Amino acid sequence: MKNLIIASTSTLHNGSYLEYLLPELEIHFKEASTILFIPYARPSGISHDEYTTKVREAFTKIGKKVKGIHEFENPKEAVNNAEGIFTGGGNTFLLVSELYRNEIIDTLEKKIKNGTPYLGTSAGSNICGLTIGTTNDMPIIYPPSFRTLGMVPFNINPHYLDPDTNSTHMGETRETRINEFHKFNPQPVIGLREGSWLDVKENKIILKGNLTARWFVVGKTPIELEPETNIFEIL
Amino acid sequence: MKNLIIASTSTLHNGSYLEYLLPELEIHFKEASTILFIPYARPSGISHDEYTTKVREAFTKIGKKVKGIHEFENPKEAVNNAEGIFTGGGNTFLLVSELYRNEIIDTLEKKIKNGTPYLGTSAGSNICGLTIGTTNDMPIIYPPSFRTLGMVPFNINPHYLDPDTNSTHMGETRETRINEFHKFNPQPVIGLREGSWLDVKENKIILKGNLTARWFVVGKTPIELEPETNIFEIL
Repeated sequence: MKNLIIASTSTLHNGSYLEYLLPELEIHFKEASTILFIPYARPSGISHDEYTTKVREAFTKIGKKVKGIHEFENPKEAVNNAEGIFTGGGNTFLLVSELYRNEIIDTLEKKIKNGTPYLGTSAGSNICGLTIGTTNDMPIIYPPSFRTLGMVPFNINPHYLDPDTNSTHMGETRETRINEFHKFNPQPVIGLREGSWLDVKENKIILKGNLTARWFVVGKTPIELEPETNIFEIL
Repeated sequence: MKNLIIASTSTLHNGSYLEYLLPELEIHFKEASTILFIPYARPSGISHDEYTTKVREAFTKIGKKVKGIHEFENPKEAVNNAEGIFTGGGNTFLLVSELYRNEIIDTLEKKIKNGTPYLGTSAGSNICGLTIGTTNDMPIIYPPSFRTLGMVPFNINPHYLDPDTNSTHMGETRETRINEFHKFNPQPVIGLREGSWLDVKENKIILKGNLTARWFVVGKTPIELEPETNIFEIL
Protein backbone atom coordinates (compact mmCIF):
# COMPACT_ATOMS: atom_id res chain seq x y z
CA MET A 1 0.00 0.00 0.00
CA LYS A 2 1.38 3.37 -1.04
CA ASN A 3 2.32 5.61 1.86
CA LEU A 4 3.60 9.06 0.95
CA ILE A 5 3.79 12.57 2.30
CA ILE A 6 4.11 15.00 -0.59
CA ALA A 7 4.84 18.45 0.84
CA SER A 8 4.93 21.81 -0.91
CA THR A 9 7.94 23.00 1.07
CA SER A 10 10.48 21.72 3.58
CA THR A 11 10.50 24.93 5.55
CA LEU A 12 7.95 27.53 6.57
CA HIS A 13 8.79 31.20 6.95
CA ASN A 14 10.31 31.69 10.42
CA GLY A 15 10.48 27.93 10.92
CA SER A 16 13.46 25.58 10.85
CA TYR A 17 14.06 22.82 8.32
CA LEU A 18 11.18 20.27 8.33
CA GLU A 19 10.02 21.63 11.70
CA TYR A 20 6.33 21.92 10.90
CA LEU A 21 6.24 18.35 9.57
CA LEU A 22 8.12 16.58 12.39
CA PRO A 23 5.02 15.41 14.33
CA GLU A 24 3.68 13.90 11.09
CA LEU A 25 7.03 12.37 10.22
CA GLU A 26 7.29 10.68 13.57
CA ILE A 27 4.13 8.74 12.73
CA HIS A 28 4.91 8.38 9.02
CA PHE A 29 8.31 6.81 9.63
CA LYS A 30 7.46 5.00 12.87
CA GLU A 31 8.66 1.62 11.54
CA ALA A 32 11.91 3.03 10.15
CA SER A 33 15.02 3.57 12.20
CA THR A 34 17.07 4.88 9.26
CA ILE A 35 15.88 7.15 6.45
CA LEU A 36 17.48 6.96 3.03
CA PHE A 37 17.97 10.54 1.86
CA ILE A 38 18.18 11.48 -1.82
CA PRO A 39 20.09 14.79 -1.99
CA TYR A 40 20.37 14.95 -5.79
CA ALA A 41 18.42 18.23 -6.18
CA ARG A 42 21.18 20.18 -4.37
CA PRO A 43 19.42 23.46 -3.42
CA SER A 44 21.71 26.46 -4.07
CA GLY A 45 24.18 23.89 -5.38
CA ILE A 46 25.21 22.57 -1.93
CA SER A 47 27.02 19.23 -1.92
CA HIS A 48 25.38 15.87 -1.25
CA ASP A 49 27.24 15.70 2.06
CA GLU A 50 26.24 19.18 3.22
CA TYR A 51 22.64 18.53 2.30
CA THR A 52 22.59 15.18 4.10
CA THR A 53 24.04 16.77 7.23
CA LYS A 54 21.22 19.30 7.26
CA VAL A 55 18.62 16.56 6.91
CA ARG A 56 20.30 14.45 9.57
CA GLU A 57 20.05 17.32 12.06
CA ALA A 58 16.30 17.53 11.50
CA PHE A 59 15.61 13.80 11.73
CA THR A 60 17.73 13.44 14.87
CA LYS A 61 14.95 15.37 16.63
CA ILE A 62 12.58 12.43 16.10
CA GLY A 63 15.23 9.79 16.75
CA LYS A 64 15.91 8.73 13.17
CA LYS A 65 19.24 8.03 11.52
CA VAL A 66 19.84 9.35 8.02
CA LYS A 67 22.03 7.91 5.25
CA GLY A 68 22.61 9.76 1.97
CA ILE A 69 22.13 7.65 -1.15
CA HIS A 70 25.50 8.94 -2.39
CA GLU A 71 27.17 7.14 0.53
CA PHE A 72 26.25 3.76 -1.01
CA GLU A 73 28.18 2.08 -3.76
CA ASN A 74 25.01 0.79 -5.38
CA PRO A 75 22.15 3.30 -5.29
CA LYS A 76 19.65 0.76 -6.60
CA GLU A 77 20.43 -1.56 -3.70
CA ALA A 78 20.23 1.37 -1.31
CA VAL A 79 16.69 2.08 -2.49
CA ASN A 80 15.68 -1.58 -2.37
CA ASN A 81 16.92 -1.93 1.22
CA ALA A 82 15.48 1.35 2.51
CA GLU A 83 13.09 1.45 5.47
CA GLY A 84 11.97 4.95 4.59
CA ILE A 85 12.90 7.41 1.84
CA PHE A 86 13.11 11.21 1.73
CA THR A 87 13.82 13.23 -1.40
CA GLY A 88 14.60 16.87 -0.65
CA GLY A 89 14.05 19.99 -2.72
CA GLY A 90 16.39 21.94 -4.97
CA ASN A 91 16.53 21.87 -8.74
CA THR A 92 14.02 19.46 -10.30
CA PHE A 93 15.90 19.09 -13.60
CA LEU A 94 19.04 18.10 -11.75
CA LEU A 95 17.15 15.71 -9.48
CA VAL A 96 15.46 13.96 -12.40
CA SER A 97 18.70 13.79 -14.40
CA GLU A 98 20.41 12.08 -11.46
CA LEU A 99 17.55 9.66 -10.88
CA TYR A 100 17.86 8.57 -14.51
CA ARG A 101 21.66 8.58 -14.55
CA ASN A 102 21.72 6.34 -11.49
CA GLU A 103 18.96 4.20 -13.02
CA ILE A 104 16.80 4.28 -9.92
CA ILE A 105 13.61 5.83 -11.21
CA ASP A 106 11.87 2.50 -11.80
CA THR A 107 13.35 1.05 -8.61
CA LEU A 108 12.01 3.96 -6.60
CA GLU A 109 8.61 3.64 -8.23
CA LYS A 110 8.33 -0.05 -7.35
CA LYS A 111 9.71 0.41 -3.85
CA ILE A 112 7.24 3.17 -3.00
CA LYS A 113 4.33 1.29 -4.57
CA ASN A 114 5.19 -1.62 -2.30
CA GLY A 115 4.59 0.51 0.76
CA THR A 116 7.93 1.94 1.86
CA PRO A 117 7.09 5.29 3.46
CA TYR A 118 8.21 8.20 1.31
CA LEU A 119 8.57 11.89 2.03
CA GLY A 120 9.03 14.49 -0.68
CA THR A 121 9.41 18.24 -0.32
CA SER A 122 9.41 20.72 -3.19
CA ALA A 123 11.37 19.08 -6.07
CA GLY A 124 11.09 15.78 -4.16
CA SER A 125 7.31 16.27 -4.31
CA ASN A 126 7.18 17.43 -7.89
CA ILE A 127 8.62 14.05 -8.97
CA CYS A 128 5.68 12.25 -7.33
CA GLY A 129 3.46 13.56 -10.13
CA LEU A 130 3.33 12.26 -13.69
CA THR A 131 5.95 14.64 -15.09
CA ILE A 132 8.09 17.62 -14.06
CA GLY A 133 6.05 19.76 -16.46
CA THR A 134 4.85 22.04 -13.66
CA THR A 135 8.10 22.67 -11.82
CA ASN A 136 9.13 26.27 -11.08
CA ASP A 137 12.83 25.54 -11.57
CA MET A 138 15.22 26.58 -14.29
CA PRO A 139 16.32 23.89 -16.77
CA ILE A 140 19.95 23.92 -15.66
CA ILE A 141 20.60 20.44 -17.07
CA TYR A 142 18.93 18.44 -19.87
CA PRO A 143 17.31 15.31 -18.45
CA PRO A 144 16.66 12.21 -20.59
CA SER A 145 12.92 12.52 -19.92
CA PHE A 146 10.38 14.66 -18.07
CA ARG A 147 8.53 11.54 -16.86
CA THR A 148 8.59 11.02 -13.11
CA LEU A 149 7.22 8.61 -10.49
CA GLY A 150 3.49 8.93 -11.10
CA MET A 151 2.59 8.20 -7.48
CA VAL A 152 -0.48 10.37 -8.00
CA PRO A 153 -2.33 10.58 -11.33
CA PHE A 154 -1.77 14.31 -11.78
CA ASN A 155 1.00 16.92 -11.74
CA ILE A 156 2.20 18.90 -8.75
CA ASN A 157 3.18 22.55 -8.52
CA PRO A 158 4.98 23.06 -5.21
CA HIS A 159 5.36 26.48 -3.54
CA TYR A 160 2.17 27.53 -5.31
CA LEU A 161 1.78 31.30 -5.40
CA ASP A 162 -1.37 33.31 -6.00
CA PRO A 163 -1.12 36.19 -8.46
CA ASP A 164 0.07 39.33 -6.67
CA THR A 165 -2.61 41.86 -7.53
CA ASN A 166 -0.35 44.77 -6.55
CA SER A 167 2.50 43.69 -8.78
CA THR A 168 3.61 45.72 -11.77
CA HIS A 169 5.67 42.77 -13.01
CA MET A 170 4.59 41.59 -16.45
CA GLY A 171 6.02 38.05 -16.30
CA GLU A 172 3.50 35.20 -16.33
CA THR A 173 1.69 34.27 -13.11
CA ARG A 174 1.81 30.71 -11.84
CA GLU A 175 -1.80 30.22 -12.97
CA THR A 176 -1.00 31.42 -16.51
CA ARG A 177 1.91 28.99 -16.66
CA ILE A 178 -0.27 26.09 -15.56
CA ASN A 179 -2.88 27.05 -18.15
CA GLU A 180 -0.13 26.94 -20.79
CA PHE A 181 0.81 23.47 -19.49
CA HIS A 182 -2.79 22.41 -20.04
CA LYS A 183 -2.71 23.31 -23.71
CA PHE A 184 -0.40 20.32 -24.23
CA ASN A 185 -0.94 17.99 -21.28
CA PRO A 186 -4.18 16.30 -20.19
CA GLN A 187 -3.54 15.60 -16.50
CA PRO A 188 -4.89 17.76 -13.65
CA VAL A 189 -2.44 19.92 -11.68
CA ILE A 190 -2.50 20.70 -7.99
CA GLY A 191 -1.06 24.01 -6.80
CA LEU A 192 0.16 23.19 -3.26
CA ARG A 193 0.74 26.24 -1.11
CA GLU A 194 3.54 26.31 1.44
CA GLY A 195 2.28 24.54 4.55
CA SER A 196 0.12 22.08 2.60
CA TRP A 197 0.92 18.46 1.87
CA LEU A 198 -0.74 15.42 0.39
CA ASP A 199 -1.10 12.31 2.51
CA VAL A 200 -1.25 9.39 0.10
CA LYS A 201 -2.41 5.99 1.28
CA GLU A 202 -3.41 3.76 -1.64
CA ASN A 203 -6.74 5.14 -2.83
CA LYS A 204 -6.75 8.09 -0.48
CA ILE A 205 -4.99 11.31 -1.43
CA ILE A 206 -5.85 13.67 1.42
CA LEU A 207 -4.99 17.37 1.39
CA LYS A 208 -3.38 18.25 4.73
CA GLY A 209 -2.42 21.50 6.47
CA ASN A 210 -4.60 24.54 7.13
CA LEU A 211 -4.70 25.96 3.62
CA THR A 212 -6.78 25.25 0.56
CA ALA A 213 -5.03 24.03 -2.58
CA ARG A 214 -5.70 25.12 -6.15
CA TRP A 215 -6.91 22.42 -8.52
CA PHE A 216 -6.55 22.84 -12.27
CA VAL A 217 -8.38 20.62 -14.74
CA VAL A 218 -8.19 21.08 -18.53
CA GLY A 219 -11.06 23.17 -19.82
CA LYS A 220 -12.44 24.03 -16.37
CA THR A 221 -12.14 27.03 -14.09
CA PRO A 222 -9.65 26.21 -11.32
CA ILE A 223 -11.20 25.52 -7.92
CA GLU A 224 -10.00 25.62 -4.31
CA LEU A 225 -9.86 22.29 -2.48
CA GLU A 226 -10.52 22.34 1.25
CA PRO A 227 -8.20 20.62 3.71
CA GLU A 228 -9.16 16.94 4.25
CA THR A 229 -10.46 16.64 0.68
CA ASN A 230 -9.81 13.16 -0.72
CA ILE A 231 -8.52 14.08 -4.15
CA PHE A 232 -8.85 10.48 -5.29
CA GLU A 233 -12.62 10.96 -5.18
CA ILE A 234 -12.71 14.01 -7.44
CA LEU A 235 -10.52 12.52 -10.18
CA MET B 1 26.71 42.38 -39.27
CA LYS B 2 24.43 41.18 -36.47
CA ASN B 3 21.60 43.58 -35.66
CA LEU B 4 19.33 42.55 -32.79
CA ILE B 5 17.12 44.04 -30.14
CA ILE B 6 16.80 41.59 -27.27
CA ALA B 7 14.15 42.90 -24.87
CA SER B 8 13.21 41.66 -21.43
CA THR B 9 9.50 42.17 -22.03
CA SER B 10 7.08 43.13 -24.80
CA THR B 11 4.92 45.20 -22.51
CA LEU B 12 5.47 47.54 -19.60
CA HIS B 13 3.00 47.88 -16.74
CA ASN B 14 0.27 50.33 -17.85
CA GLY B 15 1.65 50.29 -21.40
CA SER B 16 0.29 48.66 -24.53
CA TYR B 17 1.95 45.85 -26.47
CA LEU B 18 5.45 46.87 -27.71
CA GLU B 19 4.56 50.53 -27.05
CA TYR B 20 7.76 51.52 -25.23
CA LEU B 21 9.89 50.00 -27.98
CA LEU B 22 8.13 51.46 -31.03
CA PRO B 23 10.49 54.45 -31.52
CA GLU B 24 13.44 52.03 -31.44
CA LEU B 25 11.70 49.59 -33.74
CA GLU B 26 11.04 52.27 -36.32
CA ILE B 27 14.81 52.75 -36.66
CA HIS B 28 15.66 49.06 -36.21
CA PHE B 29 13.36 47.91 -38.98
CA LYS B 30 13.70 50.98 -41.22
CA GLU B 31 14.73 48.91 -44.28
CA ALA B 32 11.94 46.36 -43.79
CA SER B 33 8.40 46.82 -45.03
CA THR B 34 7.20 43.44 -43.75
CA ILE B 35 8.17 41.73 -40.50
CA LEU B 36 8.17 37.94 -40.26
CA PHE B 37 6.59 37.07 -36.91
CA ILE B 38 7.32 33.81 -35.10
CA PRO B 39 4.32 33.15 -32.81
CA TYR B 40 5.40 29.66 -31.66
CA ALA B 41 5.67 30.53 -27.94
CA ARG B 42 1.87 31.11 -27.74
CA PRO B 43 1.52 33.08 -24.46
CA SER B 44 -1.47 31.80 -22.44
CA GLY B 45 -1.88 29.26 -25.23
CA ILE B 46 -3.36 31.72 -27.75
CA SER B 47 -3.35 30.56 -31.37
CA HIS B 48 -0.75 31.54 -33.96
CA ASP B 49 -3.37 33.62 -35.74
CA GLU B 50 -4.54 35.47 -32.63
CA TYR B 51 -0.96 36.22 -31.64
CA THR B 52 -0.07 37.47 -35.11
CA THR B 53 -3.09 39.76 -35.14
CA LYS B 54 -1.94 41.33 -31.87
CA VAL B 55 1.55 41.89 -33.26
CA ARG B 56 0.16 43.27 -36.52
CA GLU B 57 -1.82 45.90 -34.59
CA ALA B 58 1.35 47.11 -32.89
CA PHE B 59 3.50 47.23 -36.03
CA THR B 60 0.81 49.03 -38.02
CA LYS B 61 1.58 52.05 -35.82
CA ILE B 62 5.02 52.31 -37.42
CA GLY B 63 3.81 51.44 -40.90
CA LYS B 64 5.02 47.83 -41.05
CA LYS B 65 3.20 44.80 -42.40
CA VAL B 66 3.38 41.55 -40.42
CA LYS B 67 3.24 37.96 -41.70
CA GLY B 68 3.11 35.00 -39.32
CA ILE B 69 5.57 32.22 -40.11
CA HIS B 70 2.69 29.73 -39.84
CA GLU B 71 1.09 31.38 -42.88
CA PHE B 72 3.89 30.07 -45.10
CA GLU B 73 4.06 26.59 -46.50
CA ASN B 74 7.81 26.43 -46.04
CA PRO B 75 8.99 28.07 -42.79
CA LYS B 76 12.66 27.77 -43.79
CA GLU B 77 12.01 29.75 -46.96
CA ALA B 78 9.98 32.27 -44.96
CA VAL B 79 13.00 32.88 -42.71
CA ASN B 80 15.41 33.06 -45.63
CA ASN B 81 13.27 35.64 -47.42
CA ALA B 82 12.50 37.80 -44.37
CA GLU B 83 13.36 41.51 -44.29
CA GLY B 84 13.02 41.59 -40.51
CA ILE B 85 12.14 38.99 -37.87
CA PHE B 86 10.31 39.20 -34.56
CA THR B 87 9.95 36.32 -32.10
CA GLY B 88 7.42 37.02 -29.36
CA GLY B 89 7.20 35.76 -25.79
CA GLY B 90 5.24 32.92 -24.26
CA ASN B 91 6.51 29.49 -23.29
CA THR B 92 10.20 28.99 -24.08
CA PHE B 93 10.02 25.17 -24.14
CA LEU B 94 7.22 25.30 -26.68
CA LEU B 95 9.02 27.91 -28.77
CA VAL B 96 12.24 25.89 -28.88
CA SER B 97 10.39 22.65 -29.62
CA GLU B 98 8.69 24.30 -32.58
CA LEU B 99 11.92 25.85 -33.88
CA TYR B 100 13.47 22.37 -33.91
CA ARG B 101 10.36 20.63 -35.27
CA ASN B 102 10.22 23.07 -38.17
CA GLU B 103 13.98 22.74 -38.61
CA ILE B 104 14.59 26.47 -38.66
CA ILE B 105 16.96 26.92 -35.77
CA ASP B 106 20.11 26.84 -37.93
CA THR B 107 18.39 28.84 -40.68
CA LEU B 108 17.47 31.54 -38.17
CA GLU B 109 20.99 31.58 -36.77
CA LYS B 110 22.55 32.11 -40.20
CA LYS B 111 19.95 34.64 -41.29
CA ILE B 112 20.42 36.81 -38.20
CA LYS B 113 24.22 36.50 -38.37
CA ASN B 114 23.99 37.83 -41.92
CA GLY B 115 22.42 41.04 -40.67
CA THR B 116 18.65 40.66 -40.94
CA PRO B 117 17.27 42.83 -38.14
CA TYR B 118 15.81 40.72 -35.32
CA LEU B 119 13.62 41.59 -32.39
CA GLY B 120 13.04 39.25 -29.46
CA THR B 121 10.91 39.79 -26.38
CA SER B 122 10.84 37.50 -23.34
CA ALA B 123 11.01 33.89 -24.68
CA GLY B 124 12.04 35.36 -28.05
CA SER B 125 14.96 36.98 -26.22
CA ASN B 126 15.83 33.98 -24.12
CA ILE B 127 16.56 32.02 -27.31
CA CYS B 128 19.18 34.61 -28.32
CA GLY B 129 21.42 33.25 -25.57
CA LEU B 130 23.40 30.02 -25.65
CA THR B 131 20.69 27.85 -24.08
CA ILE B 132 17.24 28.12 -22.51
CA GLY B 133 18.80 27.13 -19.18
CA THR B 134 17.75 30.40 -17.53
CA THR B 135 14.15 30.62 -18.67
CA ASN B 136 11.42 31.21 -16.06
CA ASP B 137 8.92 29.03 -17.89
CA MET B 138 7.47 25.65 -17.06
CA PRO B 139 8.67 22.67 -19.13
CA ILE B 140 5.28 22.01 -20.73
CA ILE B 141 6.83 20.11 -23.64
CA TYR B 142 10.10 18.16 -24.01
CA PRO B 143 12.30 19.83 -26.60
CA PRO B 144 15.00 17.91 -28.51
CA SER B 145 17.68 20.21 -27.09
CA PHE B 146 18.12 23.22 -24.81
CA ARG B 147 20.61 24.79 -27.24
CA THR B 148 19.44 28.05 -28.81
CA LEU B 149 20.69 30.72 -31.21
CA GLY B 150 23.82 31.89 -29.40
CA MET B 151 23.59 35.43 -30.77
CA VAL B 152 25.30 36.58 -27.57
CA PRO B 153 27.93 34.46 -25.77
CA PHE B 154 25.97 34.22 -22.53
CA ASN B 155 22.51 33.29 -21.23
CA ILE B 156 19.57 35.60 -20.77
CA ASN B 157 17.05 35.76 -17.95
CA PRO B 158 14.15 37.94 -19.11
CA HIS B 159 11.71 39.60 -16.68
CA TYR B 160 14.49 39.59 -14.09
CA LEU B 161 13.14 40.09 -10.57
CA ASP B 162 15.03 41.18 -7.48
CA PRO B 163 14.42 39.18 -4.31
CA ASP B 164 11.39 40.57 -2.47
CA THR B 165 12.75 41.28 1.00
CA ASN B 166 9.23 41.44 2.47
CA SER B 167 8.21 38.06 1.11
CA THR B 168 7.46 35.11 3.39
CA HIS B 169 7.56 32.77 0.38
CA MET B 170 10.22 30.09 0.70
CA GLY B 171 10.58 29.21 -2.99
CA GLU B 172 13.92 30.02 -4.60
CA THR B 173 14.66 33.60 -5.69
CA ARG B 174 15.71 34.30 -9.26
CA GLU B 175 19.28 34.87 -8.06
CA THR B 176 19.37 31.49 -6.27
CA ARG B 177 18.13 29.78 -9.43
CA ILE B 178 20.82 31.44 -11.54
CA ASN B 179 23.45 30.40 -9.01
CA GLU B 180 22.20 26.81 -9.34
CA PHE B 181 22.52 27.17 -13.12
CA HIS B 182 26.14 28.20 -12.60
CA LYS B 183 26.99 24.99 -10.78
CA PHE B 184 26.64 23.19 -14.11
CA ASN B 185 27.07 25.80 -16.83
CA PRO B 186 30.06 28.05 -17.48
CA GLN B 187 28.52 30.96 -19.40
CA PRO B 188 27.64 34.33 -17.81
CA VAL B 189 23.96 35.21 -17.34
CA ILE B 190 22.33 38.59 -17.70
CA GLY B 191 19.23 39.35 -15.62
CA LEU B 192 17.33 41.84 -17.80
CA ARG B 193 14.72 43.82 -15.91
CA GLU B 194 11.47 44.83 -17.60
CA GLY B 195 12.17 47.99 -19.60
CA SER B 196 15.75 46.95 -20.46
CA TRP B 197 16.99 45.57 -23.75
CA LEU B 198 20.23 44.67 -25.43
CA ASP B 199 21.15 46.40 -28.65
CA VAL B 200 23.45 44.01 -30.50
CA LYS B 201 25.51 45.23 -33.46
CA GLU B 202 28.36 42.84 -34.24
CA ASN B 203 30.91 43.43 -31.46
CA LYS B 204 28.75 45.83 -29.51
CA ILE B 205 26.20 44.53 -27.01
CA ILE B 206 24.83 47.68 -25.44
CA LEU B 207 22.47 47.68 -22.45
CA LYS B 208 19.56 50.01 -23.23
CA GLY B 209 16.70 51.47 -21.18
CA ASN B 210 16.87 53.33 -17.89
CA LEU B 211 17.59 50.43 -15.58
CA THR B 212 20.71 48.57 -14.57
CA ALA B 213 20.95 44.87 -15.38
CA ARG B 214 22.29 42.13 -13.14
CA TRP B 215 25.36 40.27 -14.42
CA PHE B 216 26.22 36.82 -13.10
CA VAL B 217 29.61 35.22 -13.70
CA VAL B 218 30.60 31.81 -12.27
CA GLY B 219 32.47 32.18 -8.99
CA LYS B 220 31.99 35.96 -8.75
CA THR B 221 29.57 38.17 -6.85
CA PRO B 222 26.90 39.43 -9.26
CA ILE B 223 27.26 43.07 -10.32
CA GLU B 224 24.95 45.73 -11.69
CA LEU B 225 25.65 46.93 -15.21
CA GLU B 226 24.83 50.55 -16.00
CA PRO B 227 22.80 51.51 -19.08
CA GLU B 228 25.04 52.02 -22.14
CA THR B 229 27.54 49.42 -20.91
CA ASN B 230 29.05 47.52 -23.85
CA ILE B 231 28.85 43.98 -22.49
CA PHE B 232 31.12 42.75 -25.25
CA GLU B 233 33.95 44.59 -23.52
CA ILE B 234 33.48 42.94 -20.12
CA LEU B 235 33.33 39.38 -21.44
